Amino acid sequence: MTYELFYWPEIQGRGEFVRLVLEDAGVEYADVGRTGGYKVLLAALERELAPYAFALPVLRAGDIVVGHTALIARFVAERHGLAPASERERLHAATVALTIADLIAEVHDTHHPITVERRYETQREPARARARAFRDARMSKFLGHLERILAANGDWLVGNAASYVDLAAFQIVEGLGYAFPHALAELAPELPRLFALRDRVAARPRIAAYLASPRRIAFNKDGIFRRYPALDAAPPRAKRARARRR
Amino acid sequence: MTYELFYWPEIQGRGEFVRLVLEDAGVEYADVGRTGGYKVLLAALERELAPYAFALPVLRAGDIVVGHTALIARFVAERHGLAPASERERLHAATVALTIADLIAEVHDTHHPITVERRYETQREPARARARAFRDARMSKFLGHLERILAANGDWLVGNAASYVDLAAFQIVEGLGYAFPHALAELAPELPRLFALRDRVAARPRIAAYLASPRRIAFNKDGIFRRYPALDAAPPRAKRARARRR
Repeated sequence: MTYELFYWPEIQGRGEFVRLVLEDAGVEYADVGRTGGYKVLLAALERELAPYAFALPVLRAGDIVVGHTALIARFVAERHGLAPASERERLHAATVALTIADLIAEVHDTHHPITVERRYETQREPARARARAFRDARMSKFLGHLERILAANGDWLVGNAASYVDLAAFQIVEGLGYAFPHALAELAPELPRLFALRDRVAARPRIAAYLASPRRIAFNKDGIFRRYPALDAAPPRAKRARARRR
Repeated sequence: MTYELFYWPEIQGRGEFVRLVLEDAGVEYADVGRTGGYKVLLAALERELAPYAFALPVLRAGDIVVGHTALIARFVAERHGLAPASERERLHAATVALTIADLIAEVHDTHHPITVERRYETQREPARARARAFRDARMSKFLGHLERILAANGDWLVGNAASYVDLAAFQIVEGLGYAFPHALAELAPELPRLFALRDRVAARPRIAAYLASPRRIAFNKDGIFRRYPALDAAPPRAKRARARRR
């Protein structure tokens, strides 16, 4: 059986959290939006996927259809050794995965604070305010939470082996580094374990091969993580110099 | 074993989606914030719940700890006959539950579009814009999605019996009716199945008993669903009259 991933073909977006699991699991999958194009994708959405697809990604595995990034990632991971074995740890992993999903939603809303139905350019001013609040408070709260889990647990977020939650943590460090390079650079000294985890995931053979392949879409301004300089902080050095002058 | 629910004691909030499942399941549970107060709640959060509790609610069941509303609701429901039996339908239920979780997050952001770290009163203007977009597009999209699922499936959202997803649907209809009475009244004619589901859930004996008990906290302006007239639409009749005058 080949997994069928339904997701927008031109962005990493939320689909990337699923792609990373499929790639690290080494399973066969069809990235339907990319192989079939929008027409095939949209036709499926309007018909057989309709009860599941309030939003993408959606995954089909035979007669099973699953929606929602964190749920799809968990589903694939538990079938292919990328999740802990015990119920207790599986639920912990699912909890952390949904915390990361909340972080992703907040990242999205830095560029769409008023409505997802209209473009960023129509909501620049509230986007600045929301991005400032995200950089000043939310980002460090979320990442600090992950750092503390690692401090308590060791090399991986849950259990004693890599799981889909670690792959998700890799992706958010990469994404935040793209979208908020200055803000993330300021936080980095407080997040040594999270950055080490990022490196550990990037070095996994199948992940390294995927990242070097054309299957890995580059970050761009249509995904969740977008580099709008107006939404990032000033570079740390300039900020520190300003602080000294006060 | 008694379930321990960790949630803020003075609001329905996200915790209510868990309380409804615990009540309908008829299981014993301690609502720790209400029985022990803030001091006990906060002490637990800082210590043994810390790796789970990026946000509340959190549920403890013996040595299992679960965070995140939709995940907790699913966990309790699958143990007590409030979820479908097959993997296929369990995943469908979990998908719909997470779609409802997204709706809840969007409802929250109508009064906190810039940051959850500061009060509504500091973000009234963007809140008006976000609430307008929510009323005009998002609310009908989410509720219409549920209506279509019911049209395809029958009396319940997933499978052929009540599940935690139906309880969640009840709660969002109640909550939206409190927070956006005019906007919801306008949509109601298009949502007959969803309103019938709301009534069906409200009539379930344990739910009816719960709603009539002091355990059901009233809606208020500290929860997710808040009645701020500035964020609701004009009453349908006034709107129609205005339209006629044009």
